[in-house]
Amino acid sequence: MKNEINIFAPATIANVSCGFDVLGLCLDTVGDTMTIRKTNEKGVRITKLTGQDLPMETEKNVAGVAAMAMLEALPEVDFGIEIDIHKKIKAGSGIGSSAASSAGTVVAINKLLGEPFTPLQLIQFAMQGEKLASGTAHADNVAPAIMGGFTLVRSYDPLDVISIHTPSDLVATVIHPQIEVKTEDSRAVLKGQVSLKKAIKQWGNVGGLISGLYTEDYDLISRSLHDEIVEPTRAILIPGFDQVKNASIEAGALGSGISGSGPSIFALSRGMETAKKVAVAMEDVYKNIGVDYDIHVSELNPIGVKTI
Amino acid sequence: MKNEINIFAPATIANVSCGFDVLGLCLDTVGDTMTIRKTNEKGVRITKLTGQDLPMETEKNVAGVAAMAMLEALPEVDFGIEIDIHKKIKAGSGIGSSAASSAGTVVAINKLLGEPFTPLQLIQFAMQGEKLASGTAHADNVAPAIMGGFTLVRSYDPLDVISIHTPSDLVATVIHPQIEVKTEDSRAVLKGQVSLKKAIKQWGNVGGLISGLYTEDYDLISRSLHDEIVEPTRAILIPGFDQVKNASIEAGALGSGISGSGPSIFALSRGMETAKKVAVAMEDVYKNIGVDYDIHVSELNPIGVKTI
Repeated sequence: MKNEINIFAPATIANVSCGFDVLGLCLDTVGDTMTIRKTNEKGVRITKLTGQDLPMETEKNVAGVAAMAMLEALPEVDFGIEIDIHKKIKAGSGIGSSAASSAGTVVAINKLLGEPFTPLQLIQFAMQGEKLASGTAHADNVAPAIMGGFTLVRSYDPLDVISIHTPSDLVATVIHPQIEVKTEDSRAVLKGQVSLKKAIKQWGNVGGLISGLYTEDYDLISRSLHDEIVEPTRAILIPGFDQVKNASIEAGALGSGISGSGPSIFALSRGMETAKKVAVAMEDVYKNIGVDYDIHVSELNPIGVKTI
Repeated sequence: MKNEINIFAPATIANVSCGFDVLGLCLDTVGDTMTIRKTNEKGVRITKLTGQDLPMETEKNVAGVAAMAMLEALPEVDFGIEIDIHKKIKAGSGIGSSAASSAGTVVAINKLLGEPFTPLQLIQFAMQGEKLASGTAHADNVAPAIMGGFTLVRSYDPLDVISIHTPSDLVATVIHPQIEVKTEDSRAVLKGQVSLKKAIKQWGNVGGLISGLYTEDYDLISRSLHDEIVEPTRAILIPGFDQVKNASIEAGALGSGISGSGPSIFALSRGMETAKKVAVAMEDVYKNIGVDYDIHVSELNPIGVKTI
């Protein structure tokens, strides 16, 4: 068995439109690289951290916390873990920066140990990293990062995560305006109560979206990519959201929405050519408003964290 | 082209657990029979009506109203329609009695005319019958009666109905306690507002159920067959609901809930043998309470209204 593994830890989109809090997807070309080593010296250490200004103390680092949760679940641990992290995903961008580090760590350690844990167990360890990052042990980013493709977090109690068939023609465009939206703020605008009428529309769209993914019915996917409930209030926190969304749909996207709790905005398109046109249309909006941005165009990643 | 057609108009289950207001399914062995004739004399007439005490005046009969809506949509009508209805489905039972008559009528007329209308158009005509029956032009029973299997009414504006893959092993058990629950009452107990937390659980379950249907994952179907929102309040109107539901699940059902707006209670099982055991368990509850009932065990009907 190897003692060192290099992996690609992908970015992810959570809260895919109508699938608020349940539906996420995995990107293919956006992500961090990591090296995870099994060492004789016990304990978990973050040995390198480039690209972002994040804490290197094990218990303050999401990768460190996820690794510790994993080692605690093993009956006998006579080894240690070293983690090198090369961040390409910006923290706070809304495309699962912390989830990539947690998910990458647990998948890599699992491989080093001969894969004793199931994907569901790995998700639970990685969720401890998410708890450190945001205060909530949510699974909507770590699940697609670990399982790939579209994932549905059906339930938390008990945790139940389902892989959803992911049509290979789908391509994501994600624009990250360089503004800060605090997770606390995007939570604060959520209403505790929603109208039954809107909730019914939302679960009708969830049903349509899941059906469209299985049957690869891109029109149905497009008709279903709406969020009646959260987007209308959260969008207010993201300058230019409506223009970016409208521009992406005019450019041919199947749908567009807030990635995670923002500020990134995603669009899904059929085929790379359209996804690139959508990127240009999104960029034009922020060029006009004068907001700096990063832009990503990526196919969906069907397997999640990859060995490189 | 024939001038007369005999059809079987199936019963249906709407509000399938988490799929409140959007998800319905079609039964195979429970339903009415109808004869629809094209006549030289113009106009729509109900020429026979057996089995239930329902109005025979065309504009007061759901089949008559659906037929008229259909004929109005044709450019030139130089013929009339006669409808014989033999009701086996009791009115007010919660398994789509009115929908069967409306759906049967429009499918039969469409066949007599050489099928000029799409299923979506037929649903829209049949919805006029539902409007007469309950005051609301809802599609959740007429859609599965016309299209068969599981159907999802994703949206009303515009109307968008999706056929969902229906595993052939699923068998429904439906018990109809002989009590009256008025549609008005079951609407009155609905709350206008629901908690976001429960709504998220509900659409997580809708996602899980639709995924389970496509992948024929019976465990996932079972885990997803929950209604967090409507069942808890509506169940109060149905004596013995909790006992019937619990007994059906103990007997092996995948899940159980209120059929339509009740009072019928349905269960879904994998295989006929289990569905029959579930029937016995449900019957025992109402025997003990001393409530009369009808009971039905039926495979799901993948095609809807059938020519006989």
